[in-house]
Amino acid sequence: MNDSGTGRLETFSDGVFAIAATLLVLELSVRQAHGDLGSELLHLWPAYLAYATSFLTIGIIWVNHHAIFALIARPDRTLLFVNTLFLLVVAFIPFPTRLVAHYLTGPDERAAVLAYDCTLLLMAILYNVLWRYPRARLLRPDAPPAAVATIDRSFAPGIPIYLIVLGVAFASPTASVALTLAAAVFYVPSSWLMRRREPRAAA
Amino acid sequence: MNDSGTGRLETFSDGVFAIAATLLVLELSVRQAHGDLGSELLHLWPAYLAYATSFLTIGIIWVNHHAIFALIARPDRTLLFVNTLFLLVVAFIPFPTRLVAHYLTGPDERAAVLAYDCTLLLMAILYNVLWRYPRARLLRPDAPPAAVATIDRSFAPGIPIYLIVLGVAFASPTASVALTLAAAVFYVPSSWLMRRREPRAAA
Amino acid sequence: MNDSGTGRLETFSDGVFAIAATLLVLELSVRQAHGDLGSELLHLWPAYLAYATSFLTIGIIWVNHHAIFALIARPDRTLLFVNTLFLLVVAFIPFPTRLVAHYLTGPDERAAVLAYDCTLLLMAILYNVLWRYPRARLLRPDAPPAAVATIDRSFAPGIPIYLIVLGVAFASPTASVALTLAAAVFYVPSSWLMRRREPRAAA
Amino acid sequence: MNDSGTGRLETFSDGVFAIAATLLVLELSVRQAHGDLGSELLHLWPAYLAYATSFLTIGIIWVNHHAIFALIARPDRTLLFVNTLFLLVVAFIPFPTRLVAHYLTGPDERAAVLAYDCTLLLMAILYNVLWRYPRARLLRPDAPPAAVATIDRSFAPGIPIYLIVLGVAFASPTASVALTLAAAVFYVPSSWLMRRREPRAAA
Repeated sequence: MNDSGTGRLETFSDGVFAIAATLLVLELSVRQAHGDLGSELLHLWPAYLAYATSFLTIGIIWVNHHAIFALIARPDRTLLFVNTLFLLVVAFIPFPTRLVAHYLTGPDERAAVLAYDCTLLLMAILYNVLWRYPRARLLRPDAPPAAVATIDRSFAPGIPIYLIVLGVAFASPTASVALTLAAAVFYVPSSWLMRRREPRAAA
Repeated sequence: MNDSGTGRLETFSDGVFAIAATLLVLELSVRQAHGDLGSELLHLWPAYLAYATSFLTIGIIWVNHHAIFALIARPDRTLLFVNTLFLLVVAFIPFPTRLVAHYLTGPDERAAVLAYDCTLLLMAILYNVLWRYPRARLLRPDAPPAAVATIDRSFAPGIPIYLIVLGVAFASPTASVALTLAAAVFYVPSSWLMRRREPRAAA
Repeated sequence: MNDSGTGRLETFSDGVFAIAATLLVLELSVRQAHGDLGSELLHLWPAYLAYATSFLTIGIIWVNHHAIFALIARPDRTLLFVNTLFLLVVAFIPFPTRLVAHYLTGPDERAAVLAYDCTLLLMAILYNVLWRYPRARLLRPDAPPAAVATIDRSFAPGIPIYLIVLGVAFASPTASVALTLAAAVFYVPSSWLMRRREPRAAA
Repeated sequence: MNDSGTGRLETFSDGVFAIAATLLVLELSVRQAHGDLGSELLHLWPAYLAYATSFLTIGIIWVNHHAIFALIARPDRTLLFVNTLFLLVVAFIPFPTRLVAHYLTGPDERAAVLAYDCTLLLMAILYNVLWRYPRARLLRPDAPPAAVATIDRSFAPGIPIYLIVLGVAFASPTASVALTLAAAVFYVPSSWLMRRREPRAAA
């Protein structure tokens, strides 16, 4: 839409984020194994947990993605490739979300949660590359150092958090998903405010 | 797209609204329980009712969402978090819609409609927070008082309506869904006009 | 996005058109009834026909929708309501498309095609209201008469075509779908050119 | 959104690309045929391969589509028609992707991969028409010859590559899909950079 060098890339990325988040609901289904619908809906709590966790996580991803591209002067071929791989992993999230929704509290719960956690870890790794690569060579000349430092701080905990989450899955798959949800809840507000404030102040 | 402080938030929200409304059709399915396809399609009326109700309801939500953000100067972290939770509930609507479509007129109809009504009530509560919070502290200095008063009036009936709808579900699940549809039909036109007229008049 | 009075309405509508068109592919499925996959894929021609017909039809709808709103000064509550009902029917198209894809050439083909044709006829009726209502009272003062006349001509054949298509379904369901496809193929180019040329010439 | 003569066409096309790419994940499913979920997920590698191949391919399509329309002055009816047919084929990609995901390494793998390869070949043919037709008569007067030559080079290998991929499918369906993935991986970066650089340099 805009022609600022990163606009088209962001438009396509935004579409993928919004669609991936909204498709999550299609992974919810009633299995009719526990008698009446009322108790069935209560037994679906792992599905609600998986839905909320993935929705909020994609929400954070979207916010931070804009924060990065607001500081980039012009994408190059490496950045485009990393961004496409990154979107590929984000758009994949509904699949392990469905696994968690179906298998949590069942005998296969560990495999389901490990698949989920590995997907998020891979996302976090690619996300770090998506920031560290342009940070080293594609920043706008007028990118405010405070904004750069804020994004640095904002991305630092990503990989460690998802490594911990992955480790917790071996002890308790449910705790692992709950921890992912908690990380998303605490992450959303901070990242947004940082982005809105600092680049403007410097403009 | 635009950089007016709320633009990106609206773009992501718009995507979620349009996708959630359009995904509703995927919840319709033919069960082939009543012999030929023609009579089967006539027996599907609960599915059509659920589809129309949810589609129009999401349509209203979308219109009012724009009305709010047109008056906000700059989102803060609390608003972002409330908006993300709100979108999470809106994107969830296709799931209870499917329950209503499948179970209405069957033995599990009450549980299905209660799940639907609770989702809409939760949406209405979050929607009120999404208006009352920025109304108290984030309004644009030039927000016309008439526009603010109009949105106040527009949001006032939301929670009471969905509480009534929820109560009616205990007496008649079908009447509860029909009432939700009626609320949407009468709500759409009024909210839109109010928003278009007054902020402009003051500009 | 833009604030020309119809911009937000068009953004939401565009989203619904693009999503409804792209969801059509989810209605395609292999039933594995004819032995090997190769011959199964050849037996799926009714599904390909239904997919192509609905995709091109939604493509036309999208083009003409923009042509209307380019000439409207400011939507009122009636127009908003008609547009929402219209989108509700457009977003419904994937459902009867799936019926045609599954039932064409089978014993239930007539019911499936009648459901499809009735959906398109209802769409055409609402589409005519969506043009005739604002044409009478909401046109921009500078709307070029030639552009208005062009849209008049462009909308005139809609309802008659879908009535004929509906009548043909009683004689041959397959011919009815083929006729709908033919109408879409011949309609796409003409409507677009008309719209692009005349409003500009007058501007 | 913009009114540069091609803006609306690109908005609708972008929506179709983003949705088609993101819908691919819905085609992944666990069949529970190999015992526990962990080994089932490892046996799903054909599904991951199909997903990644189609996602990256649609990513390339999207990038090149913008490159074309940046050089076109004004679409005519033929171009609109070709673009709609082209989008119809792009939006169809999730269907043969599902076939590859389900049937690769099984007895029906050749038919599945041939359906996939034929879809991509048809896409490549329509894509070439979508470039060669406006290139001959609809270019902007200020379209830089270097940019035109770059797109020429960028489109030249498309049809040959997908013909080779189709031929390889007769020898090895898996190798055919892997080759399609390799083509996408090497194609993404080059096409993007070309587009960003040259039109700007001439502006």
